[in-house]
Amino acid sequence: MLEQGLVIVVSAPSGAGKSTICALLEKKLPRLRCSVSFTTRPRRPGEKNGRDYFFIAPEKFKAMIRKKEFVEWARVHDHYYGTPRSFLDKTVRAGNDVALNIDVQGALSIRKLYPRAVMIFVMTPTFAELKRRLVRRRQDSGETIRRRLANARKELRYLPSYDYLVINDRLQTATREIESIINAEHHKLKNIRKPVFI
Amino acid sequence: MLEQGLVIVVSAPSGAGKSTICALLEKKLPRLRCSVSFTTRPRRPGEKNGRDYFFIAPEKFKAMIRKKEFVEWARVHDHYYGTPRSFLDKTVRAGNDVALNIDVQGALSIRKLYPRAVMIFVMTPTFAELKRRLVRRRQDSGETIRRRLANARKELRYLPSYDYLVINDRLQTATREIESIINAEHHKLKNIRKPVFI
Repeated sequence: MLEQGLVIVVSAPSGAGKSTICALLEKKLPRLRCSVSFTTRPRRPGEKNGRDYFFIAPEKFKAMIRKKEFVEWARVHDHYYGTPRSFLDKTVRAGNDVALNIDVQGALSIRKLYPRAVMIFVMTPTFAELKRRLVRRRQDSGETIRRRLANARKELRYLPSYDYLVINDRLQTATREIESIINAEHHKLKNIRKPVFI
Repeated sequence: MLEQGLVIVVSAPSGAGKSTICALLEKKLPRLRCSVSFTTRPRRPGEKNGRDYFFIAPEKFKAMIRKKEFVEWARVHDHYYGTPRSFLDKTVRAGNDVALNIDVQGALSIRKLYPRAVMIFVMTPTFAELKRRLVRRRQDSGETIRRRLANARKELRYLPSYDYLVINDRLQTATREIESIINAEHHKLKNIRKPVFI
């Protein structure tokens, strides 16, 4: 019934579990595709090119900016991050949903370009829990963890720009909740073609 | 996280399955209560007082109108139908959701009183299917079925006033879809108390 797929923005502080959730959603919702961002930051151990990010050189990234190949991009701590335009447009035009894991600034840009984008904010139950998760994954220094937590507080100020809040207490529950949100959005009258009953 | 429960309006043409869906939802969603309307029309075979309707005498109904005990009421083909106010208010104040099976006119009244009410329209895939279901349940004369179908066409004109459309093709699927909608609404930022993260 949808004219085209939905653009679904999932933002979450680093460590709140958004990339895991996206992978789970892709398995559960046959019509959902997760967008993979481009970045110039170095690949971390365990990350896979084309799955976590497309890791590219800064010159390549700048060329893509010039060719307007990003729907949104940002420079964060000396590294570039961008959401590719062609994948997004192709996916929604084919009637599939596209999920974007992006930060609050990127989310606001997407909302401007796609006013019907569904904006979901994922957060841990508390900051203390967020800190525990960041420590547990043994990826960041104490300094980086402090910066990520400060950043999370800043990001939360943008919560009123979002449509939905999902608390990632248990991963399975949070994923099911986002699944419900996406299913519900498919039944919104504003998202469906004028139905004709014969 | 909710300040109070949600008011959920489920409208559907006669025969589209709304009362069955409501009973199923009540079983699946522990926080949902279905409101039972009052009516002055005679009880039909198989109907149970207090489950399908509260069947009361016209004088009693009129007294309830005078005492403003209905959030909405209507007279349809010589019979009165009304949604009791106390059950609705008590339920949402206790933090539970209340589902109302009401027609489009009643739905619009509810929306005025409760602007955040969630409005769901349930329809069969086609009018032909609606007719089949009305015929199959062997409850109405040919004339009544024709009137119900004509009425369904009229009701569908109010579809743009609703938030969601659910097609009741398979009962289990339609129920699951409404479940998703209710779950999603519980995560809407506009429906939740300003979250505080510590």
